Amino acid sequence: MAAKQAKQYFPTVPHVGFEGLDSKNPFAFKQYNPDQIVAGKAMKNHLRFAMAYWHSMRGEGGDPFGPGTVSYRSYDSQSAERAAVHRMRAAFEFMDKLGIDFYCFHDRDIVDEAGNLAETNKRLDKMADRLEVIQQDYGKKLLWGTTNAFSNPRFMSGAGTNPRVEAFAYAAAQVKKAMEVTAKLGGEGYVFWGGREGYDTLLNTDMKRELEHLAAFMHGAVAHKKDIGFTGQFYIEPKPMEPTKHQYDFDAATVISFLIANNLADDFKLNIEANHATLAGHDFQHDLVVAADNGMLGSVDANRGDSNNGWDTDQFPTDIYQTTLAMLPILKMGGFTTGGLNFDAKVRRQSNTPEDLALAHIGAMDAFAFGLKVANRLIEDRALDSFIEERYATWDHDAMGQEIERNGVADFEALEKYTLTNGEVRPESGRQEQLENVLNQYIWTTH
Amino acid sequence: MAAKQAKQYFPTVPHVGFEGLDSKNPFAFKQYNPDQIVAGKAMKNHLRFAMAYWHSMRGEGGDPFGPGTVSYRSYDSQSAERAAVHRMRAAFEFMDKLGIDFYCFHDRDIVDEAGNLAETNKRLDKMADRLEVIQQDYGKKLLWGTTNAFSNPRFMSGAGTNPRVEAFAYAAAQVKKAMEVTAKLGGEGYVFWGGREGYDTLLNTDMKRELEHLAAFMHGAVAHKKDIGFTGQFYIEPKPMEPTKHQYDFDAATVISFLIANNLADDFKLNIEANHATLAGHDFQHDLVVAADNGMLGSVDANRGDSNNGWDTDQFPTDIYQTTLAMLPILKMGGFTTGGLNFDAKVRRQSNTPEDLALAHIGAMDAFAFGLKVANRLIEDRALDSFIEERYATWDHDAMGQEIERNGVADFEALEKYTLTNGEVRPESGRQEQLENVLNQYIWTTH
Amino acid sequence: MAAKQAKQYFPTVPHVGFEGLDSKNPFAFKQYNPDQIVAGKAMKNHLRFAMAYWHSMRGEGGDPFGPGTVSYRSYDSQSAERAAVHRMRAAFEFMDKLGIDFYCFHDRDIVDEAGNLAETNKRLDKMADRLEVIQQDYGKKLLWGTTNAFSNPRFMSGAGTNPRVEAFAYAAAQVKKAMEVTAKLGGEGYVFWGGREGYDTLLNTDMKRELEHLAAFMHGAVAHKKDIGFTGQFYIEPKPMEPTKHQYDFDAATVISFLIANNLADDFKLNIEANHATLAGHDFQHDLVVAADNGMLGSVDANRGDSNNGWDTDQFPTDIYQTTLAMLPILKMGGFTTGGLNFDAKVRRQSNTPEDLALAHIGAMDAFAFGLKVANRLIEDRALDSFIEERYATWDHDAMGQEIERNGVADFEALEKYTLTNGEVRPESGRQEQLENVLNQYIWTTH
Amino acid sequence: MAAKQAKQYFPTVPHVGFEGLDSKNPFAFKQYNPDQIVAGKAMKNHLRFAMAYWHSMRGEGGDPFGPGTVSYRSYDSQSAERAAVHRMRAAFEFMDKLGIDFYCFHDRDIVDEAGNLAETNKRLDKMADRLEVIQQDYGKKLLWGTTNAFSNPRFMSGAGTNPRVEAFAYAAAQVKKAMEVTAKLGGEGYVFWGGREGYDTLLNTDMKRELEHLAAFMHGAVAHKKDIGFTGQFYIEPKPMEPTKHQYDFDAATVISFLIANNLADDFKLNIEANHATLAGHDFQHDLVVAADNGMLGSVDANRGDSNNGWDTDQFPTDIYQTTLAMLPILKMGGFTTGGLNFDAKVRRQSNTPEDLALAHIGAMDAFAFGLKVANRLIEDRALDSFIEERYATWDHDAMGQEIERNGVADFEALEKYTLTNGEVRPESGRQEQLENVLNQYIWTTH
Repeated sequence: MAAKQAKQYFPTVPHVGFEGLDSKNPFAFKQYNPDQIVAGKAMKNHLRFAMAYWHSMRGEGGDPFGPGTVSYRSYDSQSAERAAVHRMRAAFEFMDKLGIDFYCFHDRDIVDEAGNLAETNKRLDKMADRLEVIQQDYGKKLLWGTTNAFSNPRFMSGAGTNPRVEAFAYAAAQVKKAMEVTAKLGGEGYVFWGGREGYDTLLNTDMKRELEHLAAFMHGAVAHKKDIGFTGQFYIEPKPMEPTKHQYDFDAATVISFLIANNLADDFKLNIEANHATLAGHDFQHDLVVAADNGMLGSVDANRGDSNNGWDTDQFPTDIYQTTLAMLPILKMGGFTTGGLNFDAKVRRQSNTPEDLALAHIGAMDAFAFGLKVANRLIEDRALDSFIEERYATWDHDAMGQEIERNGVADFEALEKYTLTNGEVRPESGRQEQLENVLNQYIWTTH
Repeated sequence: MAAKQAKQYFPTVPHVGFEGLDSKNPFAFKQYNPDQIVAGKAMKNHLRFAMAYWHSMRGEGGDPFGPGTVSYRSYDSQSAERAAVHRMRAAFEFMDKLGIDFYCFHDRDIVDEAGNLAETNKRLDKMADRLEVIQQDYGKKLLWGTTNAFSNPRFMSGAGTNPRVEAFAYAAAQVKKAMEVTAKLGGEGYVFWGGREGYDTLLNTDMKRELEHLAAFMHGAVAHKKDIGFTGQFYIEPKPMEPTKHQYDFDAATVISFLIANNLADDFKLNIEANHATLAGHDFQHDLVVAADNGMLGSVDANRGDSNNGWDTDQFPTDIYQTTLAMLPILKMGGFTTGGLNFDAKVRRQSNTPEDLALAHIGAMDAFAFGLKVANRLIEDRALDSFIEERYATWDHDAMGQEIERNGVADFEALEKYTLTNGEVRPESGRQEQLENVLNQYIWTTH
Repeated sequence: MAAKQAKQYFPTVPHVGFEGLDSKNPFAFKQYNPDQIVAGKAMKNHLRFAMAYWHSMRGEGGDPFGPGTVSYRSYDSQSAERAAVHRMRAAFEFMDKLGIDFYCFHDRDIVDEAGNLAETNKRLDKMADRLEVIQQDYGKKLLWGTTNAFSNPRFMSGAGTNPRVEAFAYAAAQVKKAMEVTAKLGGEGYVFWGGREGYDTLLNTDMKRELEHLAAFMHGAVAHKKDIGFTGQFYIEPKPMEPTKHQYDFDAATVISFLIANNLADDFKLNIEANHATLAGHDFQHDLVVAADNGMLGSVDANRGDSNNGWDTDQFPTDIYQTTLAMLPILKMGGFTTGGLNFDAKVRRQSNTPEDLALAHIGAMDAFAFGLKVANRLIEDRALDSFIEERYATWDHDAMGQEIERNGVADFEALEKYTLTNGEVRPESGRQEQLENVLNQYIWTTH
Repeated sequence: MAAKQAKQYFPTVPHVGFEGLDSKNPFAFKQYNPDQIVAGKAMKNHLRFAMAYWHSMRGEGGDPFGPGTVSYRSYDSQSAERAAVHRMRAAFEFMDKLGIDFYCFHDRDIVDEAGNLAETNKRLDKMADRLEVIQQDYGKKLLWGTTNAFSNPRFMSGAGTNPRVEAFAYAAAQVKKAMEVTAKLGGEGYVFWGGREGYDTLLNTDMKRELEHLAAFMHGAVAHKKDIGFTGQFYIEPKPMEPTKHQYDFDAATVISFLIANNLADDFKLNIEANHATLAGHDFQHDLVVAADNGMLGSVDANRGDSNNGWDTDQFPTDIYQTTLAMLPILKMGGFTTGGLNFDAKVRRQSNTPEDLALAHIGAMDAFAFGLKVANRLIEDRALDSFIEERYATWDHDAMGQEIERNGVADFEALEKYTLTNGEVRPESGRQEQLENVLNQYIWTTH
């Protein structure tokens, strides 16, 4: 498909294929073999990798102490609309070369804002037309769209939780349009990441009122989704902090709490990001399991943080423990339906070349492919599950346990009698170290 | 009232009274004047201080690297039942001398376990009889009781979330009894702190099943409460970690999520602990406000952590910012009803004398009394509230804002039109620094 | 002095004076009375406040998730050199209005880089000439200068620790010039903040070689300082992380280690920043005391972090515990000589007005003035020191203790005999809670 | 060797041998093949595994919220001296079964204190005699000894940093004896872990004086070592916190700073613990490299922490990234001489059986054996080193670079000219992601 466009944006990046473990070629997959069948499904259909437009096509390598280091996108200096077209072509060339089937975007990643909303929307429409064509050409799909309602200073105090109606209204208008563009492009989902939905200080904040506004915002989004017949999945992406001191969507449990309390639980799933889970004090796997146990695990932002740094480092995911333990709950819930693994990750500021961008994706795709294989073997062999089953066996075999599970209410009188009769309880080992050894053995024996 | 008992357990601790700011007497209150009226109510009725039986009467100053340093409780070496009586007398002498009106306990603080549950319960009954008398004698009240279903190895894998029915049953039997004793003593509440309700590793854990069991446990407790006619308030106390790697009751939002999802929200309030909030990555005030905004702020475990240490240091609360910002939401919700400020705090391991214990309470009581006074002035002067009111004023004055608040649903079509018409939004300063200055000025001008 | 310039850059900010605790004027000092004598010296001479050119004159309120919110500096859109002149005038007007006597800058704060180093240096020279004049006009002084050798992509892999000689050379050239400009302006010090002196991953790093280069860099700076006869004090500013994953100047102890090991200890002192100390897991006071105990406490970057957020929030310092405990070691070492309190702090992104900038400084100056007064009273009354003296008294009175202190070597044979003779040791209370109460009482009784 | 003793203390733990990757036997090594040659040396001689007497023979599974869960050591209830003998036999049986060649102890692990120091020392002597014999019988060696000068309340305020001379003296007496016992047993090293050398609050602490006392203590230890002709290596073990709020031996850099400043650097190396490094905000590898770069990497406490928990979890090391990245600097410095990998790790509280203890050691030994193999391949292939060499190549080829390295002083004049001539610097990619991919590929291809 490389013939699709004359000009190459990534001339030093070749088409990347599977070459296996012994390949010396850095631009080859060692583990990810897209069509290899694992657990009855091709790897690519399990993993549903997506490129993040913002980091990969717009990220410049800036940080709070210095501007961007990326200098290979000469089109950036052109007019907003011309730059947008080049960027789009670069994006599809990149996905094509890497064999990534999906992409994700914020409205403002596609094309910069114009002087007013009407003009901005026109720009967006034009780009949507172009994206529709190029998607078709390259055979790529939109995993999900979203709105950037956090960068522009108008949203500095929030979007759906802004103390001022005008900003709330602007955010709604923006989400409306982004949702429509997503629908037009056949997007399989739409994400709400509330970058400024939180507070910097409680001294100036009416948290209750802000959360009520946010619920009204979400109900409005649900209503509009029905109005336009958009059938994609809505997701909320938890995050504990940064940019605001405290984000309302702190973690999976907090978001689920908000959704249930506001009768929104049927309309949303969660988009779990590794680095956000760890910033909230949880393992990545924890937030995935919390979401899955509530039937709300929708999609994943695949990255990682640094356990010694307290900000959102958004590194490419290469830790095979994390990818294995992430794939476990994903496989167990039957795999993704509308969701996938979106690389919401950025190369380090010193990794300032196009090759770094490609290598980062290759490593992450390999790490998840490996995690998929290990997780699948663990499940097929019931290597952990048989232990867990045995550990909870009294609940299956004991009449009292069965009754409690059936009724959902413990009978305290009966349980007191039970205990007075049965006497002391023998504490049984949880065998954590043995299970950790099992995990390592599976890692060592998966190829 | 010192005449109540011949033997003194704290001979070096005098009765502590209010002497005001200039007192040189360390055994005097500088801020806490129990009967002084603040906001129409005596300080003592606002603050409802409680002594924690476990830390103050049983804490020995041990830590993971060394045993206890406290050597002044000679009765500890006596038989469990005799020690229990001495301990009780010491407790009431201490409360009497400090002017603390309430106390809190775990069942096992009162008296150690015997060889089996029946015997243990008998011991507990005997102590309950004695407590009933001594409460009366000293005019003290039980703020809340609770169960220690976390120390004994039988609970090493959980109580209500234990993988084995027998341990679940034992916990239920224990809670049943502790609740009955609490009721008998006129306890105004009953706390669930799930010390082992969590996991050490997901490799051996069925989190979903454990949480279903926990819900059944709580429903059983609610049913039993009705059966015995106990009218005290049930509380759950959030905690993110320690002893387990992850505790299910992570923070206020997580507990509220669990309660709502399991139809338990009407039966429980929250007991918020400062150190648990900060370990979860929140300000103490944050978790108080989350609970209050949901109508679930019940009681408070008053202590503090160390922001540079990642464990549950349980220090006595002396930070006047924390006490002020804690008293704000408490005053705003109309004050405690059944709850109070329980000093779930321990003196440092090096503070190994009875005087340290007294001085620690004095300092904490003063700090909260001061916080109460500052918070009250902030509220009366609307020093923060008038700014907040102004900040959200568009929602009160704008027709669109009013409609959204009334309907609870944002009309995205209308909001898009609104925005296309109104144009750009002007971001208004949140004035955080000014409000921080206001807070300091109120601290400096409160006496 | 407002007459000095026709155009006002901060027309809404009045000249700020001391009005005392009861003033309702937010643009007035409540605690900071510049000429009030404390401990025999005017407050202003104790505190030596400095404005940070970068945050206060160049900070725009951007963060990793959005661009700046500050829109009141219309001159920013002018040519680099014209903007530089306006910025300078704004800076001095601001210092004048706030009564701040000192300022600090990076070379690139003063004026942006030009197309090459020669041109850049010319620009800098021109601005230095202008600064010399305006300093004189306003009676302001340069507390310290420094180099920005971290923002430009050329330094993305370090300055003095860059893997490439050319970047090292460029940094040296830049420091040379900045030092010369600082000298010309009578700067009392020169700071090294190694923004990129660290690593993102050890996989690509030769830490030993980088540190040897850094030592050579510092020796070069010392030599050049002598060459040009610059008599200001050199400082290194510790920081544990961010922008790099790990910064070599992790904390005070690490920097001192580097300086001693490389024979640089006589040529440098430390510039301790509150937020850097807390990010390193230390209290602000801790790193101040470490520096002071080594005779290396030179100057202070006065700000604060947020204990629940893991990045460099650089908030204005308003916590009166921190300001009090910071002023203790500063007063005890006899106060600043060349150093001062530099507000390396930025208003929150939502605080987007000139008034916010002024109010932030006012609050911080008041907080430090208050801290100074409390610390001075604690010292004068020996409120803590007498306890400490007593606590270590055996070392003063015991012959063995005296001998150990005199010799600096413990005689293990003698100490064994001593112990076999003296028997068990009685552990004495450290009285932490009592001392915390003392601190609060001093806070409450200082006006 | 199982015949050595009639009674078995671990009857359910078999002798553990290497069975390779496909073994289904949990009591077999999958990676650790003791006599397999790697890099010219048998694995066992590279890794020099040691059993930690305290955790493995005395740990009971207690935590701050509950007592021990281990109930399989019936001899614990016997007299201190009889228990000590049983414990010793159990220890050697365990090492024998696991194939662990070394052990480490605190004096008080071996036998409990008696009523006074003289009696305690007699007990210790008796046990030393027995250990001498049993070491010989089993062919085991003492990696290092140490003193427990932190558990007993006499040391609650420190040992070498205690505010009271008597406690300092007691600690010296204890270290003297423990060093003598270590020498008698042919111990290859002696560790100083200053469990209470730090502070809980600066309010009551003279840090400077305490550190001077600590230096005198260390000089005393060095002198006594010479006196008795002990030739083992002295180590200090860094730790940032816990039990004290702040430990003086915060991290490798801080300890090195202390040693250099007090002329002790020639007499000590460091014993780096993984979990202490991570608690200090460093990667395990970081502190190893800091120590190695200073020629002070002596020995390793092999365990791990949990990045979401802020206390010293001391888990068994199973993370193969950590073991690989740890073995890199160890191999590069030529391997251990006197040091080794001591499992300062404890099974989780729920892992309450002897089998758990064995499985934990097996998993950790396998993880380090694997790390050794991966690290060796990385080094032999120069997989990282060739990139690093290339990255710093300008320093090797550029005359200016060479001169700076030779002189250790940068010539700022010359460097300015160099830069004015050479012009702008091109920032070269650090290739972090590519190197992370290389690491994974090596992990996947090592068997």
